[in-house]
Order: sequence, then C-alpha cells, then structure tokens
Amino acid sequence: MPKRLIIASTSTLHRSDYLAYLLPTLEVLYQNANTIVFIPYARPGGISHEQYTDIAAKAFKKIGKKIIGLHTYKNPVEAIENAEGIFTGGGNTFVLVNQLYKTEVLPVLRKKIFEGTPYLGTSAGSNICGLTMQTTNDMPIAYPPSFKTLGALPFNINPHYLDPIAGSTHMGETRETRIKEFHAHNHIPVIGLREGSWLEVLDNAITLRGTPTARVFEKDKVPYEITSGSLLDF
Amino acid sequence: MPKRLIIASTSTLHRSDYLAYLLPTLEVLYQNANTIVFIPYARPGGISHEQYTDIAAKAFKKIGKKIIGLHTYKNPVEAIENAEGIFTGGGNTFVLVNQLYKTEVLPVLRKKIFEGTPYLGTSAGSNICGLTMQTTNDMPIAYPPSFKTLGALPFNINPHYLDPIAGSTHMGETRETRIKEFHAHNHIPVIGLREGSWLEVLDNAITLRGTPTARVFEKDKVPYEITSGSLLDF
Repeated sequence: MPKRLIIASTSTLHRSDYLAYLLPTLEVLYQNANTIVFIPYARPGGISHEQYTDIAAKAFKKIGKKIIGLHTYKNPVEAIENAEGIFTGGGNTFVLVNQLYKTEVLPVLRKKIFEGTPYLGTSAGSNICGLTMQTTNDMPIAYPPSFKTLGALPFNINPHYLDPIAGSTHMGETRETRIKEFHAHNHIPVIGLREGSWLEVLDNAITLRGTPTARVFEKDKVPYEITSGSLLDF
Repeated sequence: MPKRLIIASTSTLHRSDYLAYLLPTLEVLYQNANTIVFIPYARPGGISHEQYTDIAAKAFKKIGKKIIGLHTYKNPVEAIENAEGIFTGGGNTFVLVNQLYKTEVLPVLRKKIFEGTPYLGTSAGSNICGLTMQTTNDMPIAYPPSFKTLGALPFNINPHYLDPIAGSTHMGETRETRIKEFHAHNHIPVIGLREGSWLEVLDNAITLRGTPTARVFEKDKVPYEITSGSLLDF
C-alpha cells in the first residue's frame, strides 16, 4: 500500500519551537502538497480549535505550506476526502477520537492514509495511527464510542515514552507497568516512542527515525530497545 | 446518609508494607466487621484475582480480619449484598469499572455504601467513589460500558497526585494540565490526593486525613491547596 506517514512522539522538543525539529522531514513528506488540512480536535490544554490551528499555521508557514483547520469546513468528511496533506495535532486522545467518530471522519481518514495521502501525527495524532488508542497516556475526559483507531500501523504507540525514574518514591505505576497491564488483557505489540523520535512509514516499511532508541513491548516477552534506523516488522 | 468510607490515594507508601500506614484507621472503620469482601478486579500489574486477594488477606490478618475475594463467589451481587465490610484494591480503573458493570456489582455496591457498610478504596478503588472515573491516571486497556462510577463523593478523585517536576525537559502533559483539559469539557470538581493522604467520609462529612495537603481543582478557578483536617464541602 502506498502509505506516507510521519508518526512523532511529540510536536515540540524542550526549549524549541512547535514542530521545529521535524520541519526538514515535513518538507519532504509534503513536497507535493501546498495546503494541509489540520485536525485540531485534540485541543491540548483545552484551547479552542481556532487557537490550535493558528499555532500549526505559524509553524507550517516556515516551509511555505498553508494550514486549514478541519473545524472551518461545513463538511469535514469532504474536506478530508479532498485533502492534499493531513496533520493531526496532539492533545487529549479521548477528545480527539470522540470527535473523529462524531464527525464520521475516521473511516475517510483511514481510506486517505491507505491511498497515500501524506499524514503527520504528533502525540495524540500518532496514537490514533495504531490499532487502538488503548496505550494513550491521557485522561478519559470524553467517552468515545470505541477505542478502535486508524490501524495505519500493525501495533500500538505509546508516545512521550518515559523510563522509570531511578530512586523515585512515588508509588503510581510506571509507564512499563501500565503497558504490562495492557498485555494482561491484549495481544497487540506496543512501541514506546521517546520524545525526539518518530516512525517513518513509506509504503509498507516502518522505520524508527530521530535520535533516541525506542522500547518495544510484546506480550510475554522481555521489553527491548531498538535504535534509530531499525525496521519495525512484526 | 450513614456513610463510612476511607478513600486513599495509595495502598502502599514507599518502603512500607501494603496498607501498613492505614491499619490503625482500618481497625476503627471495620470495628464491627469480622469478614471483609475484597474486590480484586483492578488486577495491578496484571496479577490474578487470587494473587491479589492473598496480598490483601496478609495485610488484614494483622488487624484480625478475614478477607474473601469477590471472585470466589458464584453470585457476586449477593456477596456484596451480604457483606459486613468491603475493600476495593487499586490497579487499572478501566479493568475494574468494566468488571463492575459486567458482573452488575456496581449498583448494589453503591446501595451498600449509601446504607453505611464500611468501605475502603485505594487508588483505582478510590477513583470509583467519585462521580466518574474520568480523572484516573490509568491506561484505557479495557472499554467499560460507561465512565460513570459510584458517586459516593460529590466530586472526582485524582489519586497518586503528582506536582510538576521542576526543571523537567519532558513535554508530556503534567497532571495539572490533564485536569485542566478535563475542565474544558466537564464541570465536576477534582481532588488531587497525594500519596499518604485519604478522605474520611462519615455520614455527610468528608474530611482530608493523613500528612500531605491536597490540591483542589474547580472549573474556571485557580487550583488551591487544603490541609489535613479540612472539610470538603462544595
């Protein structure tokens, strides 16, 4: 299948501008797109769709691309159907998925991705590329009709992956424990994507890019690290 | 209403035994109960109901109480109906709530709590005392039929509450940001319960107990701290 996706752990690195570290990659991803439809539904920090679209537009202006917020279209399904390029920003995955179901955008978004429309996801926008959203870090502040997501990847993502903090006295679950709990109930592999790394999907090849290693969790296996440049083929 | 609940942020303090810090409080809570029904559905770390019940039984033996796991009853609704005391342990809130709906235990558990049956909740077992489970920290590894929970409290709980880490370079949302996002979509107040603190519910009085302060989040207000001994009356 002619897929072209960049699936990033985070939109923003510490002390850096929104999307700055990804801009060279995005110039290549969107080389044939002048206008990119932005899906602002995840509303990070509860900001409005307008505010969020302004942030995305400012970053994309640096590579000469125009951003249009999906919320500005009367018919969002048609807007996705006609999109040259698509970007789903981060925020709350439950709010995002709920809105994608409510607007009936999810199936057409999936179709467009599988037809090869260039797609960028960051954080929650990356989570939805997995088979389900069940390895999100977000609070369930909205109740979507299903946790099933795009399935553009044959596994799930855990973005903003965090290693256990050495010497911590906090008794809340570590990220690794949470994913282990996921595997007590589910079989789907999970990729812990650290900030600064992303998955590049080119047709059927999925490659880890960026600086950090990623942590792979498979049911009943000891978790292991893969380095940048590795192919993810389960 | 004759309610008697202890709603704790965590079961276990760092370098301490399971429930150790709460045992004096539990001796009072359960003074008229010899046998306590334990709800092991949240399965922390994915452990079995049996393994989890053994852990609870070992702690309660120290105060001369017998623990029986709810999973051992043929009819869990009847078991809750007849319980002298109830304890719901922590783990994954989605798994817990899903199982409480599946077994139809949720309404009878609510009824028993409102009749004055002594109840202890820790972590996920505390989350379900709120109006909804929507301020849990857990991963959505199961899909419950609803996020509505017991409503034994007129607000929501965020257990294992964590302050932002000074100087952190991680770009994932802080707990405070996540709760702010909750309030972009919901009106329910949220109590951030730090480890080592708990809510004591006696009839209609809800009091913060333990050592740490708690953080209160109300929609469109600046979050604020309350000290141990404070009444929570919204």
